[in-house]
Amino acid sequence: MADEIDGLKFEQQHGKSRVRVARVWRKEDGRHFFVEWNVNISLLSDCLSAYGRGNNSDIVATDTMKNTVYVKAKECVDALSVEDFAIELGRHFTSFYQQVTAAIIKIVEKPWERVYIDGQPHEHGFRLGSEIHTTEVIVKKSGALRLTSGIEGLAVLKTTKSGFEGFVRDEYTALPETRERMLATEVSALWRYHFESLSSIPAKPLYFTEKFLDVKKVLISTFFGHVKGVYSPSVQSTLYDMARAVLNRFPDISSINLRMPNLHFLPANISSKDNPAIVKFDDDVYIPTDEPHGTIQASLSRSWSRM
Amino acid sequence: MADEIDGLKFEQQHGKSRVRVARVWRKEDGRHFFVEWNVNISLLSDCLSAYGRGNNSDIVATDTMKNTVYVKAKECVDALSVEDFAIELGRHFTSFYQQVTAAIIKIVEKPWERVYIDGQPHEHGFRLGSEIHTTEVIVKKSGALRLTSGIEGLAVLKTTKSGFEGFVRDEYTALPETRERMLATEVSALWRYHFESLSSIPAKPLYFTEKFLDVKKVLISTFFGHVKGVYSPSVQSTLYDMARAVLNRFPDISSINLRMPNLHFLPANISSKDNPAIVKFDDDVYIPTDEPHGTIQASLSRSWSRM
Amino acid sequence: MADEIDGLKFEQQHGKSRVRVARVWRKEDGRHFFVEWNVNISLLSDCLSAYGRGNNSDIVATDTMKNTVYVKAKECVDALSVEDFAIELGRHFTSFYQQVTAAIIKIVEKPWERVYIDGQPHEHGFRLGSEIHTTEVIVKKSGALRLTSGIEGLAVLKTTKSGFEGFVRDEYTALPETRERMLATEVSALWRYHFESLSSIPAKPLYFTEKFLDVKKVLISTFFGHVKGVYSPSVQSTLYDMARAVLNRFPDISSINLRMPNLHFLPANISSKDNPAIVKFDDDVYIPTDEPHGTIQASLSRSWSRM
Amino acid sequence: MADEIDGLKFEQQHGKSRVRVARVWRKEDGRHFFVEWNVNISLLSDCLSAYGRGNNSDIVATDTMKNTVYVKAKECVDALSVEDFAIELGRHFTSFYQQVTAAIIKIVEKPWERVYIDGQPHEHGFRLGSEIHTTEVIVKKSGALRLTSGIEGLAVLKTTKSGFEGFVRDEYTALPETRERMLATEVSALWRYHFESLSSIPAKPLYFTEKFLDVKKVLISTFFGHVKGVYSPSVQSTLYDMARAVLNRFPDISSINLRMPNLHFLPANISSKDNPAIVKFDDDVYIPTDEPHGTIQASLSRSWSRM
Repeated sequence: MADEIDGLKFEQQHGKSRVRVARVWRKEDGRHFFVEWNVNISLLSDCLSAYGRGNNSDIVATDTMKNTVYVKAKECVDALSVEDFAIELGRHFTSFYQQVTAAIIKIVEKPWERVYIDGQPHEHGFRLGSEIHTTEVIVKKSGALRLTSGIEGLAVLKTTKSGFEGFVRDEYTALPETRERMLATEVSALWRYHFESLSSIPAKPLYFTEKFLDVKKVLISTFFGHVKGVYSPSVQSTLYDMARAVLNRFPDISSINLRMPNLHFLPANISSKDNPAIVKFDDDVYIPTDEPHGTIQASLSRSWSRM
Repeated sequence: MADEIDGLKFEQQHGKSRVRVARVWRKEDGRHFFVEWNVNISLLSDCLSAYGRGNNSDIVATDTMKNTVYVKAKECVDALSVEDFAIELGRHFTSFYQQVTAAIIKIVEKPWERVYIDGQPHEHGFRLGSEIHTTEVIVKKSGALRLTSGIEGLAVLKTTKSGFEGFVRDEYTALPETRERMLATEVSALWRYHFESLSSIPAKPLYFTEKFLDVKKVLISTFFGHVKGVYSPSVQSTLYDMARAVLNRFPDISSINLRMPNLHFLPANISSKDNPAIVKFDDDVYIPTDEPHGTIQASLSRSWSRM
Repeated sequence: MADEIDGLKFEQQHGKSRVRVARVWRKEDGRHFFVEWNVNISLLSDCLSAYGRGNNSDIVATDTMKNTVYVKAKECVDALSVEDFAIELGRHFTSFYQQVTAAIIKIVEKPWERVYIDGQPHEHGFRLGSEIHTTEVIVKKSGALRLTSGIEGLAVLKTTKSGFEGFVRDEYTALPETRERMLATEVSALWRYHFESLSSIPAKPLYFTEKFLDVKKVLISTFFGHVKGVYSPSVQSTLYDMARAVLNRFPDISSINLRMPNLHFLPANISSKDNPAIVKFDDDVYIPTDEPHGTIQASLSRSWSRM
Repeated sequence: MADEIDGLKFEQQHGKSRVRVARVWRKEDGRHFFVEWNVNISLLSDCLSAYGRGNNSDIVATDTMKNTVYVKAKECVDALSVEDFAIELGRHFTSFYQQVTAAIIKIVEKPWERVYIDGQPHEHGFRLGSEIHTTEVIVKKSGALRLTSGIEGLAVLKTTKSGFEGFVRDEYTALPETRERMLATEVSALWRYHFESLSSIPAKPLYFTEKFLDVKKVLISTFFGHVKGVYSPSVQSTLYDMARAVLNRFPDISSINLRMPNLHFLPANISSKDNPAIVKFDDDVYIPTDEPHGTIQASLSRSWSRM
């Protein structure tokens, strides 16, 4: 959304970040459902005179945006997915305010999981799990929608069946080739759903929550392979297999972006002038490091989508 | 360990922090075992002239300490607990170096957990879990030992059966009394084992690893109670019950320290001059916050121990 | 850079992050110059078969990229700007490797500043300052260039001459209007230079280093105004003035993006049922908070540039 | 403060952390003074029945502690040091509440510094500097006092005049000796004042603020030496000189503790089987790393104090 001021091109957005909200739903049978969300709102709106002339009359205060998060959370009388909540916020801002042409809603869901005591689910007890569920929704005044979900912090590692061979060798190359190394990464995934308007969204309130769990399962099982493992010739190759598996399995996902830093576990070899083998590596002792680390990222899309 | 220089009291220690080491053990049946440790070494030693006179002849270089971590990891031909590895390092530094009178070894174990694919354990695949296992070992030249284990980052929350009533009310008090609130905390626990010499340590290599899991289970089940929950009149009371349960259950634990910040979920009430109830709280919508937060900590010890 | 695999659109890049390098230049007069850089390299290259077929023959190992950083740092026999170093890396990767079509180099410079002792500059002593200098350079095989510099962490605050009035009031609005509030933000700025090819870069080695200091000075002086201050009717208005001032002053900057979160200092008002004024605000005591915070960002460009 | 419950030794404290408060003082001549503090309160009190019997009648709510911070900030009608504010809080809690036997107040002051525009001090503009001023005050009901101040984050580096030779060499030693290396550290200092009762504190409101600046100056000038530098044979030796200089200069400081991690800048040497000198170090290119890092800490005390 570009405007012009004094012959210059001008683009702006404003919003509220780190709006934290928690919602409890209490069922008659005593079970509680619970979510905690960290909401980031950004509005594209016609409010140029606030910038150029100090006139705030078109500005939706970011404090008002914050309040709206709590109002809308209250209005959700049944448990719903983080995606559906983001869509509801986007719908509200673009329809309630004349001057708002688009809303960008990003939410991070804290990974609270129901506690089990002696194998039984607790009615109202939760503990924090590992990977994080995110969503980013863009809603336009027209009702057009761009819906992306993601996972952050999925740290996975395999102690064998990984190698790296046959790469470019030149005067700056020191890395030996290998067919036996650790493979460790922290997967960040973003996938876009093919729903492109508010009206096309599935009605089922936890549709996207279940989808998230399914995508996570496919990413994990493709990374590791069956219980005896699968050989990885490179992070690149494994990443591609994971992206491909997601698109193959989920027809309503139109594209996926994966970022998979290569978190190195260096072979522990330590020597000195006097002692050539203080420690000599034998596929046993490693030096984990994440500085520096390799960065590999890629997007795979069905032809008709633009990630 | 205090010395005197020029009529002043002088205490010092030096060591190496953030020494990262990973160890893989490969079994004949194809299963791999794996740990990743972040090691912190600190030595108390007779090396005063390094400080006062620039004479390094008694200084064990921190680089040498680092190397030793990898040497010792290699020497561990079977999987062992993080506590046993820390003890081994402490034993080494105090026996190998004449001038080292005590070693303080702290290790953080990364919570890698074996992956399950379709319900089956993977041979060599691991993913990162949540809570962190720590240990701190102090070994003296005499063989005297102080062995502490801990858990960090155990975030737990219950959506009901918590209240806070009957506290001091004075001119600075604004908090209303309640029998219905969220209770959320991130438990940090440190417990000391009663083993007080190197020779008294149990021989079983994963003794302390299993103990850690058992303590965690007792902390969780006491915090939440059975699946229908148990009423908490205060963080203080719940903390005490948890400490008590651990000492009751584990005779070889002589004391426990619990830190349980009260991570507040504030009732969402929003009003303005024009609208007294933009949002009116009904035990449904909360504002999570960790700034500020309550801090509650306590230690419970059998009379004969000093934490 | 999009490719097609099996009828799917595919985009990828790989590189190395957090490559840390420090460089000392020793002058004959005894003075040392020093920089510390954290380098992030990402290459766009023709290496599709690594993803789809496990063939690494076109892959430049990220370890090789890392090595190259140190080689190039060594080759810089005179002190140079972080921008010039990034450009040199981009030039190298796109010209040395046939398959590399573009290089994206991002560098963060640690704010080491020469120490002054009794008002005199120290020959070889440095201490860490505050704000961070960043750069992002995109170099294409053709020699086309996109050069952006930035500042991170410029935290500024004024205790008066800030207000916010006349904004939209609706049923979700609770914020009162004010002409007296704190204004605090942590400025992140990115500005693009108009140099669009490798050959057009100024030859002066510290050209961009000086420019960085000049831009910082303009941002600060516009935010604060003269020593008696200048009234800010909104973050939006102040941000616009700052962007405008930079473009006005520096003809070789073609666009600037500013992100200025509104870090709120809430009036301290505390009351209870019994005491309506435990603390009553009188423009004196504030509750600083950064969760939630307002987010205001905008870009201002001369018409011919695309940020 | 140990109690006994059911034959077990019990120690506890509770309080409030991360209470953020800012205070503006407006002078008649237009100048503003400003501080931002992050306050941590912990009370030792007789409230055993809260733990063992769920009886909160002796509990000072942590919410009340928080409110008190704002009340007391308001009552400070003139600018004062962070130490004096901490002392005032400690005095209040131990005298106002019968059951409170001691208060531990820790405060971190954000390093806001007055802005200069064209060399002139701005009336109400501030920007964030680098190192952090901390204090920890323990006040007992008797009026006994323990007053500690500190500095955090003082990152300093010299590019020469540092070595490390003559240390212990054994079978685990790989580090070469050197008379030419980088020396980098981030100093954390804590110093205790000899004032041991509330009544003995100097009346001057900014006494401790000035002292903080003076101590910082002595630490820096001792670390670096004059503008041509001073040789450091080890971090240990330099640390001792710094501690010694502080005690020599400030008679009202009774002890000082310094922690100075050795943040390594490794020589950049890169080789491969084919190329023994991809990069060959010549005191020019370094690899900065802080994982792992050496840890050196020591305390120096006049004989009559206990740090």
